Amino acid sequence: MRITALAGGVGGARFLRGLLHHLSGRSDGPHTLTIIGNTGDDITLFGLRVCPDIDTLLYTLGGGVHEGQGWGRADETFAVQGELKAYGASPQWFGLGDRDFGTHIVRSQWLAQGHTLSEVTARLAQRWGLPEQGVTLLPMTDVPVETHVVLEEDGEQRAVHFQEWWVRMQAAVPAQRFVVAGLDRAAAAPGVLDAIRNADVVLLPPSNPVVSIGIVLGVPGVRDALRGTAAPVVGVSPLIGGAPVRGHADACLSAIGVESTTAAVAGLYSDFLDGWLVDDADAASMQAPGTSRGLRVEAMPLLMRDLEHAARIAGGAFDLALGLRRD
Amino acid sequence: MRITALAGGVGGARFLRGLLHHLSGRSDGPHTLTIIGNTGDDITLFGLRVCPDIDTLLYTLGGGVHEGQGWGRADETFAVQGELKAYGASPQWFGLGDRDFGTHIVRSQWLAQGHTLSEVTARLAQRWGLPEQGVTLLPMTDVPVETHVVLEEDGEQRAVHFQEWWVRMQAAVPAQRFVVAGLDRAAAAPGVLDAIRNADVVLLPPSNPVVSIGIVLGVPGVRDALRGTAAPVVGVSPLIGGAPVRGHADACLSAIGVESTTAAVAGLYSDFLDGWLVDDADAASMQAPGTSRGLRVEAMPLLMRDLEHAARIAGGAFDLALGLRRD
Repeated sequence: MRITALAGGVGGARFLRGLLHHLSGRSDGPHTLTIIGNTGDDITLFGLRVCPDIDTLLYTLGGGVHEGQGWGRADETFAVQGELKAYGASPQWFGLGDRDFGTHIVRSQWLAQGHTLSEVTARLAQRWGLPEQGVTLLPMTDVPVETHVVLEEDGEQRAVHFQEWWVRMQAAVPAQRFVVAGLDRAAAAPGVLDAIRNADVVLLPPSNPVVSIGIVLGVPGVRDALRGTAAPVVGVSPLIGGAPVRGHADACLSAIGVESTTAAVAGLYSDFLDGWLVDDADAASMQAPGTSRGLRVEAMPLLMRDLEHAARIAGGAFDLALGLRRD
Repeated sequence: MRITALAGGVGGARFLRGLLHHLSGRSDGPHTLTIIGNTGDDITLFGLRVCPDIDTLLYTLGGGVHEGQGWGRADETFAVQGELKAYGASPQWFGLGDRDFGTHIVRSQWLAQGHTLSEVTARLAQRWGLPEQGVTLLPMTDVPVETHVVLEEDGEQRAVHFQEWWVRMQAAVPAQRFVVAGLDRAAAAPGVLDAIRNADVVLLPPSNPVVSIGIVLGVPGVRDALRGTAAPVVGVSPLIGGAPVRGHADACLSAIGVESTTAAVAGLYSDFLDGWLVDDADAASMQAPGTSRGLRVEAMPLLMRDLEHAARIAGGAFDLALGLRRD
């Protein structure tokens, strides 16, 4: 079965690692997984191209991630960053380890040689063993886009790169709005639209609905492909009891004027969503009149404590999709 | 007194560190030192600009060099290089440590931002405390030049980058000739020609006479400035008993058809050299008829075993120059 998933960083990567674990235990395979990764929060640091979500997906699915923090490399050292600081190079608020620098250096080198981000990502994915797992990782677009966050401080508006808001400010300064420079003319990367159109199942992991999934949905053609695909589209709520498990999804939802409830998040996907997996804590709120309209909602515990929990949740989403296919 | 020195990598850096040590013990100061560093063996690796000689000068004079090997950083780690290898990025034969990568990353970033190599080198030199030592480090040119080595293998000629010949092949394949792409139109960096013209003393450390000093001499205007300066020009022989102490100076001399003798090296500088400091082992060979023609030759042990030895040799060269000034 051909499964296609849109994904951001930590939450998406952990969910998809759980999905692969779940699929490997099923007897109805083989299944292939195409991941459309968010590149909206990519950033150029020290002249090197950094793709935080793509890297988190690579490291997590390839077994190289720092388990505790969910991003970056295990057994990391920080000699390069120390040198950059000694030279007075900025910014210092984005922590990059030595192993992680290796990824950014080869990516930047290959991009500078004329390869597309898709081609570069495929080469990186080989090292992390994704093809052997039946996984194809596609960036949502080969065109560089940058998410800026408009802030209001002392009555004045100014824009900072998304990563500065997310990492340095920890999203503590309220975002007025997000501006994704270049997104409206960013052609979907080769294979992205077909992966949605030709899928048997489309999954939305519990990634940030605004700055991860929301950005991928902004790539021209993606939303239409989701509306048009014959595959059931099943999402997993990123909120538990109305609050994000990690990250700052609530701050992001607030910036776009959307309530921090699992029903409101489903509403962002209402034009293409067929199934919605929510946490038990949010099941009641989804039964309010007018929230579901043809949407099949199921509930289970959604906290991804470890690989087994993630696999169980991914299995729940996959089974929900299979049920929708049979109907 | 304004001292100007041309310099390559390890030998030049150790000599100049010795010179600074010697000068700090003299009572006739203050003295300032302007170093014109060879950039002819610069190379772009993994998309990053590497300046081996400039870096060796920075690290050695700034107290960060790996003492045993004479280049690269002390307390170095190799996480980045390991990652590049895992990704299949090449080349693998040029060993770059993590701390060293920090230098190449900031240099490349600043160059990409539009700063010249002179400006970038000045910023790097600040971190290494060169200005406080009265030292100005100038690249010979801001224009990228590349030294290629023409080899003949199985009857066919091919060219490799100088670093590939020097580092990977250890100069074991005989060089047919050196081609320095861009050198004949590489304008001297700001300050280079004036530093020679306005110097009180010009020193040539025991750097490689072909691929270090010889390349700097090839920058348009440098040789004329040396011929025209009122300052005495004093060189230190890079050979001891006709053999290089380190590096492959003999292989380089052979490629340009010059004997590996200290007299022959002095002959390469004959149009501007006023004083020549040789090792005791080579003193006799310099007394052969016709070798000196107005060149003042002095002899002393030239092996730079440690900082004290290097300081003594540098002091010998400086005193030889002062003697020539008085005459």
